[in-house]
Amino acid sequence: MIPSHGYAASAARGPLAPFKFERRDPGAHDVVIEALYCGVCHSDLHSVNNDWGGSRYPIVPGHEIIGRVTSVGSAVSQFKVGDHAGIGCLVDSCRECGSCHADEEQYCERGATGTYNSYERGTRIPTYGGYSTNYVVAERFALKIPAGMDLAATAPLLCAGITTYSPLRHWKVGPGQRVGVVGLGGLGHMAVKIAHAMGAEVTLFSTSESKRQDAIRLGATHVVLSRDADQMKAQANRFDFILDTVSAPHDINGYLRLLKRDGTMCLVGLPETPTPIAAGNLVFGRKSLAGSLIGGLAQTQEMLDFCAAHGIVSDIELIPIQQINEAYARLEKADVKYRFVIDLATLKACSGRRRLSRTPPPGARPRRAPGGRSRR
Amino acid sequence: MIPSHGYAASAARGPLAPFKFERRDPGAHDVVIEALYCGVCHSDLHSVNNDWGGSRYPIVPGHEIIGRVTSVGSAVSQFKVGDHAGIGCLVDSCRECGSCHADEEQYCERGATGTYNSYERGTRIPTYGGYSTNYVVAERFALKIPAGMDLAATAPLLCAGITTYSPLRHWKVGPGQRVGVVGLGGLGHMAVKIAHAMGAEVTLFSTSESKRQDAIRLGATHVVLSRDADQMKAQANRFDFILDTVSAPHDINGYLRLLKRDGTMCLVGLPETPTPIAAGNLVFGRKSLAGSLIGGLAQTQEMLDFCAAHGIVSDIELIPIQQINEAYARLEKADVKYRFVIDLATLKACSGRRRLSRTPPPGARPRRAPGGRSRR
Repeated sequence: MIPSHGYAASAARGPLAPFKFERRDPGAHDVVIEALYCGVCHSDLHSVNNDWGGSRYPIVPGHEIIGRVTSVGSAVSQFKVGDHAGIGCLVDSCRECGSCHADEEQYCERGATGTYNSYERGTRIPTYGGYSTNYVVAERFALKIPAGMDLAATAPLLCAGITTYSPLRHWKVGPGQRVGVVGLGGLGHMAVKIAHAMGAEVTLFSTSESKRQDAIRLGATHVVLSRDADQMKAQANRFDFILDTVSAPHDINGYLRLLKRDGTMCLVGLPETPTPIAAGNLVFGRKSLAGSLIGGLAQTQEMLDFCAAHGIVSDIELIPIQQINEAYARLEKADVKYRFVIDLATLKACSGRRRLSRTPPPGARPRRAPGGRSRR
Repeated sequence: MIPSHGYAASAARGPLAPFKFERRDPGAHDVVIEALYCGVCHSDLHSVNNDWGGSRYPIVPGHEIIGRVTSVGSAVSQFKVGDHAGIGCLVDSCRECGSCHADEEQYCERGATGTYNSYERGTRIPTYGGYSTNYVVAERFALKIPAGMDLAATAPLLCAGITTYSPLRHWKVGPGQRVGVVGLGGLGHMAVKIAHAMGAEVTLFSTSESKRQDAIRLGATHVVLSRDADQMKAQANRFDFILDTVSAPHDINGYLRLLKRDGTMCLVGLPETPTPIAAGNLVFGRKSLAGSLIGGLAQTQEMLDFCAAHGIVSDIELIPIQQINEAYARLEKADVKYRFVIDLATLKACSGRRRLSRTPPPGARPRRAPGGRSRR
């Protein structure tokens, strides 16, 4: 087993605190990665809080991992020591079902293995995520990071990037199309950049006028206030595709009316309660409401290459691991532009220490990370 | 103007009674049709009852019309006197928008002209439906009836047939696919026949075990009781396409779980209340919930030709027009296998009479039409 340490939640809603553990011994097809950066996805917060049920503690979150390869198994052909590599939401799957054969491992019919809060395939060894010093992963589930990419700002592409790229590609978004993006958060800001790079005319739908300037900067041509009935009405029957990145419960029918005939609205968020749909909004215009889950490994690589070619990374705030609990508090208020990324060098710095107290020091408050910076 | 007479409702939920009116003078591109048979669609009942709002009385229902051409305009090229012709749900559209140019007149962006409860394009002359002696229609909106088809049993193809054929064709149903049909009524029984003829393996979902034998006879391979949780669970992730023909409010989530990855469930009914959809049922498996509305003229002709080639017509009960109110009462209880069709020869028989009383005679009860018969 390989020693590792990171930050874990030991109970629902519990603060994250230092945690030591071991990773499985690498096999012939595995690479070992020294983790350099890890994005902070809203799913991490949901998992720590057990919002979806099924959380098993301790949880080391993190599935937007960028690292450096430190060793490779004898059968590894695509990576060598020193390469940069990425790990996204999946670290294994059955590799045999129709979805796996179709390079859609995220829909593995026997259930894919999550990067954290799962078990190493065929064992009861827990998978621990990327808020940690290293990772052992099968070559097939590691991504190659194109040369020249900003490593920290590339990390969020491994979930936020592929989650938005995959449906935009699947529904063939391209030049001459009008695409709507609902919500400008971690997912939404990637969707705006990617849809714009694919050649579509992008409209951002937001509940907040304050998002206008940023949306335009990121690639949107129009911004529509979704709470303004007149603005919404003016967009009726105009959109080829709408990508809804909002995970809080919200009205869907108003957006379905904005689709053209044969248009599709795709959900990538998972609101906790079902949303009412009026059949007429689908029947009149042969419209579709769909969903999409991250993307397969091949498409994730395609997305990384696309982003490298188009100079796309995430807008991030880089934080030291020691500020992860403050970052979670800000994430709950959607107070981040647009993704926290943990600089894992700050984890190494404390690698010699014993487990830290789980209670934040008195008077500790969420604050902007001193090392915080915004990248485009 | 051309004199006509038929049966109309003069108020919401009012009984249908004889009604005299005039149709527009035919132009160079029009054909005049002597109506022979007209199917009784559930939409007729909804319109008479003003269930959807917007009903304008008097209403002469009927949009599943089969007739014989009695005169043609000077520019008509596709029909000659004596031909059999059909009229479905639409009798005109703007002919200029993207949908009209794409042969999808049912989605005309300026609103298609309904066969009844609408106005002749650009006028305030009401359109009256097929429970009547004749119709004046532009050649472009008339269908050619393939030789040899049973005329009465072909009438329902013009709405029930195309409403189910269109989505089955649009989503490319064919051999090697598993297709689910929800509900075995006027639409559902056509969907089973057509999907089977397209080469798919058809499963009927019904709340009633009593539908099993008929479903198998019509072309289903399997029948699943939708109220039986175990039966439903056994069908998880098996279906390429599910066509939901039920217009009463019902659970959709249970069916979404039966779709394969990338599968589509299509609604053709219009429940009066929105239905709650759990996003996870779409996201996990990249599934789609869609809707579809009848079909365009070109596809309606394609459907008629397909049905002729495969020996498909509707199962009908032929009734005299004088029993229309009893038929409506039975239709409200879903007591019909599977479509009432009016023999309009029975309307001619009373053409010399004055308007009949709108009140049914004392003691009148719904009963099985003496002329009722079942056709396959």
